[in-house]
Amino acid sequence: MLDIYQFQTADLIVSGKNSVETLSDKLSVFNPSIKSVLLVTQDGLIDIGLLENVNKQLEKLDASVETVANVLPEPTIESIQEIADDLKGKKFDYIIGVGGGSVLDAAKLLSVLKTNKETLKEMLDTAEVKLPGIPTALIPTTAGTGSEVTPNAIVTIPEQELKVGLVSRHLLPQLVVVDPQLTLGLPKPITAATGMDAYTHAIESFISNKANKLSDMFALESIRLISDSIVEAYDNGKSLEAREKMIVGSMYGGMALTSAGTAAVHALAYPLGGKFNIPHGVANSMLLPHVMSFNLSSIPDERMKLVAQAMKVYEEKDSAEEISFKVIRQIEEWIKLLNIPQDLSEYGVTEDDIEDLAVSASKVTRLLDNNPVALSLDDIKNLYRKLLD
Amino acid sequence: MLDIYQFQTADLIVSGKNSVETLSDKLSVFNPSIKSVLLVTQDGLIDIGLLENVNKQLEKLDASVETVANVLPEPTIESIQEIADDLKGKKFDYIIGVGGGSVLDAAKLLSVLKTNKETLKEMLDTAEVKLPGIPTALIPTTAGTGSEVTPNAIVTIPEQELKVGLVSRHLLPQLVVVDPQLTLGLPKPITAATGMDAYTHAIESFISNKANKLSDMFALESIRLISDSIVEAYDNGKSLEAREKMIVGSMYGGMALTSAGTAAVHALAYPLGGKFNIPHGVANSMLLPHVMSFNLSSIPDERMKLVAQAMKVYEEKDSAEEISFKVIRQIEEWIKLLNIPQDLSEYGVTEDDIEDLAVSASKVTRLLDNNPVALSLDDIKNLYRKLLD
Repeated sequence: MLDIYQFQTADLIVSGKNSVETLSDKLSVFNPSIKSVLLVTQDGLIDIGLLENVNKQLEKLDASVETVANVLPEPTIESIQEIADDLKGKKFDYIIGVGGGSVLDAAKLLSVLKTNKETLKEMLDTAEVKLPGIPTALIPTTAGTGSEVTPNAIVTIPEQELKVGLVSRHLLPQLVVVDPQLTLGLPKPITAATGMDAYTHAIESFISNKANKLSDMFALESIRLISDSIVEAYDNGKSLEAREKMIVGSMYGGMALTSAGTAAVHALAYPLGGKFNIPHGVANSMLLPHVMSFNLSSIPDERMKLVAQAMKVYEEKDSAEEISFKVIRQIEEWIKLLNIPQDLSEYGVTEDDIEDLAVSASKVTRLLDNNPVALSLDDIKNLYRKLLD
Repeated sequence: MLDIYQFQTADLIVSGKNSVETLSDKLSVFNPSIKSVLLVTQDGLIDIGLLENVNKQLEKLDASVETVANVLPEPTIESIQEIADDLKGKKFDYIIGVGGGSVLDAAKLLSVLKTNKETLKEMLDTAEVKLPGIPTALIPTTAGTGSEVTPNAIVTIPEQELKVGLVSRHLLPQLVVVDPQLTLGLPKPITAATGMDAYTHAIESFISNKANKLSDMFALESIRLISDSIVEAYDNGKSLEAREKMIVGSMYGGMALTSAGTAAVHALAYPLGGKFNIPHGVANSMLLPHVMSFNLSSIPDERMKLVAQAMKVYEEKDSAEEISFKVIRQIEEWIKLLNIPQDLSEYGVTEDDIEDLAVSASKVTRLLDNNPVALSLDDIKNLYRKLLD
């Protein structure tokens, strides 16, 4: 546990059923005369009517709205830069992102690309965002990344077959609206993958070397809420109660990782996304039970007990070994119940790719440094190999 | 529980032992060229050397520092306005408050009085702060009010013998530094009263009609941390572990009340402060067990169980009645162990004052509306009378 730790999040978070209907009111808390809005989203979300209530709110504002709806899933650095270049010369008072993690990250990046003269590549190279961006409001439509409350944005660099993160407090939004209604129609595979992503954020923050009193509270509450609802949200997607627990749990996961960071699961997941386009949540889910087993020796018994309690798999009589076993078995059970693939070969990965994947993962030191056990190149290879059987 | 709920706090919170030594670094995150600082504190804190580390940090900034050290405990509206008037014409890039709740509230108010043309009285009359203030950094030296993370400031209006609150998001600080080292020397009576104040924030937020998923997490964690450490912090003031739990618990209490509000205990405590100068934490402690008993019928059993679990007084075999009894008995035990007065007559209150006190309390509808049971004037009188036996 760190001695000195810090926490930062959005300026204002509004949550609960139909909270999106407060959007125009809440925006005017910050700026009562918004004249022009950039709406960042995806065509698919517009097609299924998910933007209807947001648009009604924007009509109330009486502002001009320009919509960018071509954000790619797990977007590349070039695709974001292109959108930013297309918007050059246009002025916006506010940027509103409505979508999953990719859309929210894109909204955050477009915000700072609008006010800084550096390109996205230059920001990534220097790991710095110099000036605050245009204020953003972020409205998640998945319960997964927690991107709505983090100062992080993830992009893919195809040449390097890698996903990288930009971290800056200038990426934090001003307003966050977390409305479970927007996730009621989320398809099963996305519910599963994004939900396990959120769980991974929570548990990696909890075992991180940078874990602290603040991140622990968010991490454990996130684990509690997700454990309580992930299977129900998958089986019965219309359950508002399960969806609310998932989306709030996902937000807490984002708050936990903002303070404590993620660790080896995420480090090893990035090359799977960058090289084989494996969705981030799927890659995390695949790796999680194996990395947890690998880390066990360095997680204090008392802390595994807290995890098991939050997951409601703990019994008073359990030994420390049984507790760890139950936690990992529960994760494996979820993966089965949620039909998440467990075999890298389904994505075209072969033994020949392991070396390259491991070398790439070993470079994600920002996250590997948070892992309670140091990973050698061989450790990383062995972990990938467990997903090739 | 509310359907739609919201949360807001400081832009950046830094916590942990010696975190005050990061002050200049963290300030430069927001403004790398601070030229002039207004330091708001109290002479008594300077005398015992509590400002030494803060001053070292300010020297690093190479900024001019003007110090206001005459903030009164539980300050009046006039005393704050006077300080603001004295500072007229002076420009500051940053305001730093170091002290207990009164000092932090004063720093917040001076910040917005510097940028708004309205007087404090006008702000209170209209319940509005129009413009953002000068950015503030708040550094608590007690573990109690949670003022460092709330958008609230409390002042006394002597003519009306009342304490009133100004609530505005413009009162939220930019930076908060929560360093338990600063509370190691806190005298026993202040440790006791401020600690019970923090506990009262947590439990009132939890039973508030505006309680929600966000506030519940902070409230329960606050109850957990304070229950775990309040007696130890009192008995063994040098225990950094107990002090850290108390100051983090107090901050979480502030976060809980920001989202859910406090209730009848606070409403009835304000006139005791306004008319008889009873310290806020003492007034809250006196009232808490009686108001809790009064409210019991309207607090769901499941929620009292969560409180009892957080306080570690719960046993599986307990009936709902036993759980409530144990929670209230624990509060009463703390009051005894912490030597907090339980008799209003010690402060000069007599039966003749009850009517006036009750009329004043009944006007604090902002807080009474949060109470799970509506209080008639007679209910309020009866509650005060319980402290006159």
